[in-house]
Amino acid sequence: MSILAVGSVAFDTITTPSGHAESVLGGSGTYFSLAASYFTEVRLVAVVGDDFTAEHEQVLKKRKVDTRGIEHEKGKTFRWGGRYLDNLNDAKTDFTELNVFEKFQPRIPAEYKDSEFLFLGNIHPTLQSAVRLELSDVKLTGGDTMNFWIQGAPEELRETLRLVNILMINDGEAKMLAKESSLPRAARKVLTMGPNALVVKHGEYGATIFFRDGTFGGGSHPFRAPALPIEEVKDPTGAGDSFAGGFMGYIASQEDVNREIIKRALFYGGVMGSFAVERFGTERLENLTRDEIDARFQVFRELTHLG
Amino acid sequence: MSILAVGSVAFDTITTPSGHAESVLGGSGTYFSLAASYFTEVRLVAVVGDDFTAEHEQVLKKRKVDTRGIEHEKGKTFRWGGRYLDNLNDAKTDFTELNVFEKFQPRIPAEYKDSEFLFLGNIHPTLQSAVRLELSDVKLTGGDTMNFWIQGAPEELRETLRLVNILMINDGEAKMLAKESSLPRAARKVLTMGPNALVVKHGEYGATIFFRDGTFGGGSHPFRAPALPIEEVKDPTGAGDSFAGGFMGYIASQEDVNREIIKRALFYGGVMGSFAVERFGTERLENLTRDEIDARFQVFRELTHLG
Repeated sequence: MSILAVGSVAFDTITTPSGHAESVLGGSGTYFSLAASYFTEVRLVAVVGDDFTAEHEQVLKKRKVDTRGIEHEKGKTFRWGGRYLDNLNDAKTDFTELNVFEKFQPRIPAEYKDSEFLFLGNIHPTLQSAVRLELSDVKLTGGDTMNFWIQGAPEELRETLRLVNILMINDGEAKMLAKESSLPRAARKVLTMGPNALVVKHGEYGATIFFRDGTFGGGSHPFRAPALPIEEVKDPTGAGDSFAGGFMGYIASQEDVNREIIKRALFYGGVMGSFAVERFGTERLENLTRDEIDARFQVFRELTHLG
Repeated sequence: MSILAVGSVAFDTITTPSGHAESVLGGSGTYFSLAASYFTEVRLVAVVGDDFTAEHEQVLKKRKVDTRGIEHEKGKTFRWGGRYLDNLNDAKTDFTELNVFEKFQPRIPAEYKDSEFLFLGNIHPTLQSAVRLELSDVKLTGGDTMNFWIQGAPEELRETLRLVNILMINDGEAKMLAKESSLPRAARKVLTMGPNALVVKHGEYGATIFFRDGTFGGGSHPFRAPALPIEEVKDPTGAGDSFAGGFMGYIASQEDVNREIIKRALFYGGVMGSFAVERFGTERLENLTRDEIDARFQVFRELTHLG
C-alpha cells in the first residue's frame, strides 16, 4: 500500500570525523522516501528551489518515489550545515537557511489523496495536522517532531498528536514532551496525548516502542530493537528519518497491522538506519537491494535472539 | 560450580530523585555476591572495619554467601557518598573514605583455592593479577576496572587484562582503554589485549558482548541484551556489579561455557541489574526468588524477541 510522506528536501553540508560533504541531497522527506521505497510505493510532498535539478530528482525517481508532490518554487532549496565531532549522536549546527522551506504549505496532489499510510516529517505541527485532515483514506499516521516545536508550538503540537497513531521521537524529546525524566513514565504520558504507540529512538542503542494497552491487538508491553554496532559511522545525518522509512515502509507493505508486524518493522527501521550512516548523505540508501536488507535483518535478529 | 569474588564491601550514602539512604551496605563485592548467589555458590574476599557488624554479615550469610574470606581490620569500613541528580547513569561523588580498603591485600583462604570461577571486582589491577595467579583451578575469570585505573595504572592493567577471560566495563571505559571513539573498533582493540570477550555495559540500554573470533565455540558476531525500561529507578548504585553477578553466576551454574550460555548469561545480568535498581542499596537483591528471576528473564525475552 502507498505511503504519503511530507517532509523537507534539503542540501546538507556535513563534517564528521570521517570527512566532509558539501551541499549533498538530504532532508527528512528524502531519507524517509528512499528508505521506505524498498518496501512499498512512496509519494513525497515537499518544496524545493531552482537549485534542485532534474539530476537531484532522478535520485528519488530511480527508487520509484513519486515526485509529483514536490513543489518547485523560485529561490533556493532549504540548506543546512552541521558537524559531528566527538559525539556522533549529536550534531552542532553551522547554519540553517530555510529558503523556500520557510513558506512551505504542503499541497496534496489529487493523485495522492487515496494514500493509506501517512508520514508527517518534522515540520510545523499546524502543517502536519492540515495534511492529515486532508486525507480521508489514511489507515495509519506516523509522525515526527522535535524540541523546537515541543517548546515553540506546544498547543499546535497537542492538536497534531491527537491525529498521529505512531509518534517517533528520541529520548530527550520524549522526556521534554512529557516533562518526565523517567522514560517509561514519559512514554505512558505521551500515550495519553493521542498516539497508540510511541517509538523512542536511542541512536546507537536502537529503539523502543511503547504501546497504549489494547492497541494493535496487544497489551502495554514495550518492545526493543537494537541498532547495529557499526565500525565506522561515516555520517549520522538522516538516520532517524531512514529508521522511520524502514519502519513505516515495512508496515505499509503488509496486509495487516498487528503487534508482530510492528515489532518486525522496528527491526527494519534499525536496518535502514544502519545502512544510512555507512556513507555520506543518501549514497548508501540509493543503491541497496532487498536481499541486502533482509540479510541485515537476520544480523539484527542474531544480535538479539537467544537460541 | 563456585565463584570466588574479590571486591569492596562498603557503606554507601546515596541521594537520588527518589530519596536518600544513609550508610547502607554496598560495595562491588556485596552486590556481585548477592546477585550471583541466586545461581551458584559464592565465596567473597574483601575487607571490613569494626563498624561491619554480625548483622551486616548476616545479609550475605542469609544468601549463603561464604564470608570466611572477609577480613576484619581495625578501623572503619570503606565509605562512599554520592548523588544521582538528573542523570541516573552518572553519580556525583560527595565523599570517598577508603579507610581499611586503602591497604587491602586480598588473602585467599585455603578453602577457596579450588574455586573454578573468579570475579575480579574493581580494585587495583596489581591486586587483581595477584589473586588470579594464586588460583590454579580457575576455568574462567571475569573482571571489572574503571577510568581511575585505566589512566592511573595502565601498565599494571595491561598485565591484568592478559589474565582476564571476560572483561566487563562501560562504553566510556572501553573507549578510553582502547583510545578509540567507535565502540566496535574499541572492542576489537580491547580483545587484542587479552580477554576472549568484552562485555560493554550501556546502563539503561543494556549491554553488548563482543567476542574474539574462535572463542567459546563461535565467531566474532556480537550479541546484545536489553535493560528493562523501569518506571522508577530508585537507586542505580550497584547495578553494574549486580549485572556482573547475574552474568557470572549463571555461567558458573552451567555444565559448559559456550556461546548460547554466555548469551543467556547476558540476559541474566540485565535481569539482576534491573532488580538492583528498584530499591535503595541491596534491599531488592536480598529477598528475591529464582522464580521471580526467571519470570523477569521471560520479560526480557519478550521485550526483544520476534515471534
